[in-house]
Amino acid sequence: MQQGGSSYPSCSSTSDCFSLTHLSAAQCGSENLSEPEKSEVRANNTSTELSRMRSLVMFYLSYLLCVCLGLSCVICVYVWNSQWLGGFSWDGSFLQFNWHPVLMVTGLVVVYGIAAVMYRIPLTWGQNKLPWKLLHAVLMLIALVLSVVGLCAVFDYHNAKNIPNVYSLHSWIGIVATALFAMQWAFGATAFLLPCSPLSLRKLLKPVHVWFGGSVVFLSIAACISGINEKLFFDLKENTTGSQHYRELPPEAVLGNALGVLIVAFGLVVLMILSNHKWQRPDSRTGDLAYAPLLQEENE
Amino acid sequence: MQQGGSSYPSCSSTSDCFSLTHLSAAQCGSENLSEPEKSEVRANNTSTELSRMRSLVMFYLSYLLCVCLGLSCVICVYVWNSQWLGGFSWDGSFLQFNWHPVLMVTGLVVVYGIAAVMYRIPLTWGQNKLPWKLLHAVLMLIALVLSVVGLCAVFDYHNAKNIPNVYSLHSWIGIVATALFAMQWAFGATAFLLPCSPLSLRKLLKPVHVWFGGSVVFLSIAACISGINEKLFFDLKENTTGSQHYRELPPEAVLGNALGVLIVAFGLVVLMILSNHKWQRPDSRTGDLAYAPLLQEENE
Repeated sequence: MQQGGSSYPSCSSTSDCFSLTHLSAAQCGSENLSEPEKSEVRANNTSTELSRMRSLVMFYLSYLLCVCLGLSCVICVYVWNSQWLGGFSWDGSFLQFNWHPVLMVTGLVVVYGIAAVMYRIPLTWGQNKLPWKLLHAVLMLIALVLSVVGLCAVFDYHNAKNIPNVYSLHSWIGIVATALFAMQWAFGATAFLLPCSPLSLRKLLKPVHVWFGGSVVFLSIAACISGINEKLFFDLKENTTGSQHYRELPPEAVLGNALGVLIVAFGLVVLMILSNHKWQRPDSRTGDLAYAPLLQEENE
Repeated sequence: MQQGGSSYPSCSSTSDCFSLTHLSAAQCGSENLSEPEKSEVRANNTSTELSRMRSLVMFYLSYLLCVCLGLSCVICVYVWNSQWLGGFSWDGSFLQFNWHPVLMVTGLVVVYGIAAVMYRIPLTWGQNKLPWKLLHAVLMLIALVLSVVGLCAVFDYHNAKNIPNVYSLHSWIGIVATALFAMQWAFGATAFLLPCSPLSLRKLLKPVHVWFGGSVVFLSIAACISGINEKLFFDLKENTTGSQHYRELPPEAVLGNALGVLIVAFGLVVLMILSNHKWQRPDSRTGDLAYAPLLQEENE
């Protein structure tokens, strides 16, 4: 059942539930309150406003950190594969393999993560939801295409070298992450973009969609860490021409490890943004396509 | 500010906030409502009760799954290291290394995960919180000690074989996970167990404690997956006596990969239980040490 004056779908702690304090006062009819009660309501409203501003600032700082970490991951994986590992090609050689880490990190981790937290940007809340839904779907499709091309790169390389596919734990987790992502995209587009899908079904499926989205982040990052670790052990062996062993931590090893740390930090920031219910886009009373922003609502 | 008749600290969607619907009616004074309004309140209460029972059943099914997956992880890692990898010893040989995966999976993943979701068990909500806090702290301490002994096993093995420590990405992530866990334990014991720590500080720090707790799960599972992957590549090489290469997927490889999948599944279930705000222990009006259970409250 919708609450009286507005809809604030979620709160994660007593202090997060400020909006509901406000709603209860409105529901009970604040015009019937005594003077001390009215000043208490005014004090609560000021405290609520401060809490919201603090929440906004914290969100934008976290979002900035998320974007910076994402860009660092892409730069780092590109520099590693282009400068240390010889660059790129699509000829069945190890240069084709180099597309795999670049495309998986860019698609399955960074573009995916940025698209996942897109709805949390408060600037978008005052606008019609449909263009943002389409942008979310398009960004996710770009992430999915990059991931699938990244998988094709490694499958082609393995086939050219007669190496079996999908035997390592890294590949099992990576394949599950990509398959779950593809299902999540198809399921999301059907449930949330098709006009024939009923609003009640969307409301029911939304938490499931968000939770599976977080699971893909979890799986893709576990796959990336195991993949980078495996790649560094493969490439940095003793007795290969001019290269140091991984255990001596040459610059390439430090770069690869740093990439892993950046990916984990990016994943943690994405999951923190997704799990903070204060930062969720508030549902609207007017349906699924239009939303009233949190701050605008108070001024109207 | 606490809501009038009770304290329900969190809700994750409109449908989750059923308790607040009930509270708003109580705050406005349901005895002043008309007959149709009263029957609406009664219908809401019945629907609320059904929703709570559904939530309870879902929690216990998830908890059962969590415990079964945790036990499977422990059995699987023990069988792998005792049957396939030669068993255990503490003599600087590879048999000492075998303690590392067993203790890390048992401590940093399974005991940690079980201890993390312990507060979510509704059966514990009607009782004084202190014994449960102590049990949570003791279980976490056991997990921490197992993890530290697991790290000592691999450090001793490396030192005996003159292999440098903490160079791989797996070790970087694992060390960060264990260090964060140790800090989390010390911080948690200080903030939530010492009687001199003020209630306001506890309320402020609780979401931070829960979030860092989830981050340790995330890091430890990324470390486990990369560690198992690395171990299987190390052990299952071509031309070693009688063993097949990892890429041929011999039974040991399937067992190791299955262990990785079980660990990821366990981590996802733990994070799902932690992130579901319907399943959070409700805060009490009477302070931090005593809690009124969700269902009992209605009968009083």
